[in-house]
Amino acid sequence: MAHETAIDDLSAILGQRLSRSKSDLELHGRSETHFPLSPPDAVAYPENAEDVVQIVQTCAAHRTPIIGWGTGTSLEGQAQAVHGGVSVDFSRMNRVLEVNQEDLTVRVQPGVTRESLNEELRATGLFFPVDPGANASLGGMASTRASGTTAVRYGTMRDNVLGLEVVTAAGEVIRTGTAARKTSAGYDLTALFVGSEGTLGLITELTLRLHGIPEATAAAVCAFERVPDAVACVIDTIQMGVPMARIELMDVESVKAVNAYSGSDLPHRPHLLLEFHGTETGVEEQASLFGEIADQRGASDFNWATRAEDRTALWTMRHHAYWAILAARPGAKAVVTDVCVPISRLAEAIEACRADLEEAGIDGPILGHVGDGNFHAILMFDPDDEAEKARVLAASERLVDLALSMGGTVTGEHGIGLGKLGYMTREHGGGWALMSAIKTAFDPLNIMNPGKLVPPRN
Amino acid sequence: MAHETAIDDLSAILGQRLSRSKSDLELHGRSETHFPLSPPDAVAYPENAEDVVQIVQTCAAHRTPIIGWGTGTSLEGQAQAVHGGVSVDFSRMNRVLEVNQEDLTVRVQPGVTRESLNEELRATGLFFPVDPGANASLGGMASTRASGTTAVRYGTMRDNVLGLEVVTAAGEVIRTGTAARKTSAGYDLTALFVGSEGTLGLITELTLRLHGIPEATAAAVCAFERVPDAVACVIDTIQMGVPMARIELMDVESVKAVNAYSGSDLPHRPHLLLEFHGTETGVEEQASLFGEIADQRGASDFNWATRAEDRTALWTMRHHAYWAILAARPGAKAVVTDVCVPISRLAEAIEACRADLEEAGIDGPILGHVGDGNFHAILMFDPDDEAEKARVLAASERLVDLALSMGGTVTGEHGIGLGKLGYMTREHGGGWALMSAIKTAFDPLNIMNPGKLVPPRN
Repeated sequence: MAHETAIDDLSAILGQRLSRSKSDLELHGRSETHFPLSPPDAVAYPENAEDVVQIVQTCAAHRTPIIGWGTGTSLEGQAQAVHGGVSVDFSRMNRVLEVNQEDLTVRVQPGVTRESLNEELRATGLFFPVDPGANASLGGMASTRASGTTAVRYGTMRDNVLGLEVVTAAGEVIRTGTAARKTSAGYDLTALFVGSEGTLGLITELTLRLHGIPEATAAAVCAFERVPDAVACVIDTIQMGVPMARIELMDVESVKAVNAYSGSDLPHRPHLLLEFHGTETGVEEQASLFGEIADQRGASDFNWATRAEDRTALWTMRHHAYWAILAARPGAKAVVTDVCVPISRLAEAIEACRADLEEAGIDGPILGHVGDGNFHAILMFDPDDEAEKARVLAASERLVDLALSMGGTVTGEHGIGLGKLGYMTREHGGGWALMSAIKTAFDPLNIMNPGKLVPPRN
Repeated sequence: MAHETAIDDLSAILGQRLSRSKSDLELHGRSETHFPLSPPDAVAYPENAEDVVQIVQTCAAHRTPIIGWGTGTSLEGQAQAVHGGVSVDFSRMNRVLEVNQEDLTVRVQPGVTRESLNEELRATGLFFPVDPGANASLGGMASTRASGTTAVRYGTMRDNVLGLEVVTAAGEVIRTGTAARKTSAGYDLTALFVGSEGTLGLITELTLRLHGIPEATAAAVCAFERVPDAVACVIDTIQMGVPMARIELMDVESVKAVNAYSGSDLPHRPHLLLEFHGTETGVEEQASLFGEIADQRGASDFNWATRAEDRTALWTMRHHAYWAILAARPGAKAVVTDVCVPISRLAEAIEACRADLEEAGIDGPILGHVGDGNFHAILMFDPDDEAEKARVLAASERLVDLALSMGGTVTGEHGIGLGKLGYMTREHGGGWALMSAIKTAFDPLNIMNPGKLVPPRN
């Protein structure tokens, strides 16, 4: 096995904090979606930045790959050990270090999950808004530049990470950003590490922006005759400047799947799922304005969730949609598309996607964060049917090309990983070579998550 | 003179678009603040990206420095040709290329100024919010990561640049970002170029986010007994989540200067200048909430500007404050400090600064974007009095150390240029070496604004 020496050295340093058990290796080699098992040679469980420094220095000495691991919920195979090496599992670095209520910031270790952070914040009147659905780790969310249902109002991880502590590929600890709300002091290293998928260094601490829990919150679902009506309603709402906290689409197939999975009884029509945040008056005003817009687009079956537990049920249903859709076809795997287009092209993009999937005979419920122009088609296939998988991947690629032709991006929030690497030249042209130059400058030995994000080295 | 060959070659290519007139060279070598004249060897006036490519390729062939120039309003000497070379003046690349009303975006050339953009947008119901005071070019604002009075609500250039066209140091045209509202497709090159002060490439086009002109706007001034009362009011307001569009502080000395300069008659007390954006109801609600908070801090002399022309007069007065302060001491130059601290430390920082200046006997009116924790002391000195200049620079440095000790930054919005270069290690530690690695990777010949932002090369 490769990397044996590094792992022996690490074992001497980390003791019980290094695992080579088969189950651990398999767990850290699996993918949430359809990528084949790629286990690492060992799994390290650092308890502090000093452990991470030792791991990086030891691996660097033997050119052994290092792959960060949060909760394993990435969808593009970001954390798979395609060249073996050491998976660095941050689950033991899971402390909330300091809540600063006056500055609306918090310092956390990377293994803290978004749900546990919000649990810890409960008494403060503050919350961390970024919500990708999965109970992901904050280090992983930063590394993927994750977003989700609330990005339309609160932004993505790009907007909510103020600063980082990072162990570089040279095994040095650096800090990026400050505790101030803005800075013009040189290159934006924070923004560079956010979304870098562990290819430039390992995040060992994050300073995050928090937001006040709004005085009033209201959530609702409503149904439309056709997907284009729902999307037109979204576009109108965004263009009118209604500060939606969430505005999510589910098509008929998604609705059927969540009904079956979550026991809901939504009518079999396309739905929008909504949330409004503000003062009592502000929420009323927003809801009323949205209601007018929705009326014009023929919305019906409004169902309001004003009690906290009803809202929780609503968003839990939404968050489980991926599993609900997979459950509708037992044994299936899925390619989850993630294009994001300018909102003016959203209706056209969804319709073209829908028509393409129908023509190709692919099961592909559509849902997504339509307020951002971001939607997902869950393209299911039988993992034992290579021909079907190829058809699904071809459809995904056609959708990528469509989004790029509209000025959009191949990934709104899931990142590159293994699944989108082949599209980087199409999206970035010469910019991809600049990314490669950054990678080489930061990680000349190519030990940080090799095989991801930048062009493979010879 | 150095760089003669490059300039001869460029002259053949650009003809009248290259100037060597003494007045042009001096104009492009001067600083808005206190830095000594550093003229370039020539000034190029590109009319399109192709011109810029030719300029970069020609200069690269002869290792001649290239310095971008917008409107010359940077405050830290960013655009000064400290190693000679060619100043690239973008004033002829001043077209608004495409307003996309549905997507709330606009594509502009870098020489468009923020005022001319908003003039052009007037009929659309949209506006570009970032407002550093000076009528700066958008290319310059992006390069400096500028912000200003509205950042507390609308963010900085970091938040409002969606994508860029850049001519790299190799003379290649690349595009960063997309027209979609978010993306997770690899390293955030847009964020890397924003704030890079022309050291990584030249911006030849920007895609910017626009915002709907709010249904209602109200502005006001109010006075406080003491600066700490005003600052406490700001902190309370931000922590209460009131979505202020602007919240600015002027101390007594600033108030006296703007009264004399702008003909206003504000009482000789510290003031907050405010603006509220929203629906009619929302603005009323915000103003009422702010009023309650301000009352508790002893605010008085509320003066509301509801007519558009009164608001314009108010913000013009604020924007001219720097000139008003300089005018109060004819012949003086100024070091303009720009620290930004966590808002919980703002009162303490301003008080410590005030006490320090008094003890040092320095004229230093204080004003700033206090909603962000960012404030400026305008430290005046007689340019012929080296001892006074040294005292002022020492005071500026003490303030920098204070801000860093509070978890803040040496520059909230003015950038590094020449004035803050000496503090980069203190702020970034090992992170500065990573910036240097990026610079070397992007610009191995060190021709893009050499002597700025990263450690000087031997």
